[in-house]
Amino acid sequence: MTELKKLSNQDIPTHPLFESDPGAWRMLVTSIHRKVYARDKVVVCHGDAAHSLWLVYGGWIKLVRQTPDGKETIIGLCTEGDIFGEAALFPNASYPYQAEVIAGQAELARIPAKEIQAIAKQENTFSSTLMTLLNERNAQIQLRLEHATTMSAAQRLGCFILRLCRNSGNDSAKFQIPVEKHILASYLGMKPETLSRSQQQLKEMGVEIAGANVTVASVEALKEFVCGSCSESGTGTCDIEKNS
Amino acid sequence: MTELKKLSNQDIPTHPLFESDPGAWRMLVTSIHRKVYARDKVVVCHGDAAHSLWLVYGGWIKLVRQTPDGKETIIGLCTEGDIFGEAALFPNASYPYQAEVIAGQAELARIPAKEIQAIAKQENTFSSTLMTLLNERNAQIQLRLEHATTMSAAQRLGCFILRLCRNSGNDSAKFQIPVEKHILASYLGMKPETLSRSQQQLKEMGVEIAGANVTVASVEALKEFVCGSCSESGTGTCDIEKNS
Repeated sequence: MTELKKLSNQDIPTHPLFESDPGAWRMLVTSIHRKVYARDKVVVCHGDAAHSLWLVYGGWIKLVRQTPDGKETIIGLCTEGDIFGEAALFPNASYPYQAEVIAGQAELARIPAKEIQAIAKQENTFSSTLMTLLNERNAQIQLRLEHATTMSAAQRLGCFILRLCRNSGNDSAKFQIPVEKHILASYLGMKPETLSRSQQQLKEMGVEIAGANVTVASVEALKEFVCGSCSESGTGTCDIEKNS
Repeated sequence: MTELKKLSNQDIPTHPLFESDPGAWRMLVTSIHRKVYARDKVVVCHGDAAHSLWLVYGGWIKLVRQTPDGKETIIGLCTEGDIFGEAALFPNASYPYQAEVIAGQAELARIPAKEIQAIAKQENTFSSTLMTLLNERNAQIQLRLEHATTMSAAQRLGCFILRLCRNSGNDSAKFQIPVEKHILASYLGMKPETLSRSQQQLKEMGVEIAGANVTVASVEALKEFVCGSCSESGTGTCDIEKNS
């Protein structure tokens, strides 16, 4: 892994935790370690003491758990603008998953838990920003659980794609999902062959997926297809309207 | 609804929020309203300002959301010892679901959000208890999401039953689940006919379900069947080992 240049006061990441409270970023910035991690690198282990909160600056990270009988579940796929390791916000907590770099290298910033907890104790504003972040996380996972029963496979894939359109600023969007098919399928709670069928279905909504390349002709049209089956669309808890 | 006698310092509910911090209970107890609510009563509405945190003393509550295209999802089933309305812990949050009394009357205690927030601001211990509670909630929902892909329908039903065994103290347990089949099936993410098959399967593990009456011959045997497919069994995040 490669150590990158020190972050400055001006490098506020586009994440609600810091966007809404730039003062917290200024207090934390000198203790943040930003590095490039190679593909397949295990960044945190399931069950390890959660010493750090992690910000994703680039690349892809899978959050994975293993059951005693050997099944693997992908419980998160993080990319630019995402955060993982929120367990670090709590005293004596451990990571509830393994985090692993997939699909090329990833650029991550690590914030020591101790620093965050110390600032949260001093600063009421930061402490309530943390609480709000946790509540939103909670709401987002709840939403994924809901989607598992109310949405079709194609709608769930569409919802994931919409999340990645969040920073495009336009009605059309172009980006990459360099994630292996079986990983994406597992994350979305479907079989790889169902994922293929869902990709075909999304073509009719103007979504072209060729290998890792995704082109969305109209974000609005995709929203129309996806969000009618979601109880949170339009309320702001929805991941599509906010960074996560 | 019927107003019940005022709660006292001694009536600490069996919930981690107060068990670990009886001082917080003593500070809050005079502002808590305990009442009996009739069946079908809507206690909170989805989207309403979250003015209160709710403790369930008895009965059953379903937490439900509706999608714009009319599908209903049961995202929670609460009973004695459970809490709902955690949104009240955050300034300006709204309830992310409707809460409705099902299966007979329910006894609930309502704690005003303002009081909780005021105490959390003054008392660091209470504030970190709240954070821990939210983290556990988060972990539990995440776990349900995991179970949807790693567990069989019978294991999911078994996990729900184990949660209700948590206060039995013995290896055998006897209790009621007076919840209509289609509601329970929806909560567990399965069809009513799959629920019936799962009940049959659990018979082999010594679980007898006759109408609302449930008898578990051996909690340990049921755990063996269920928890091998769960990445959190034995870690303490698991609902079965803790109150939720």
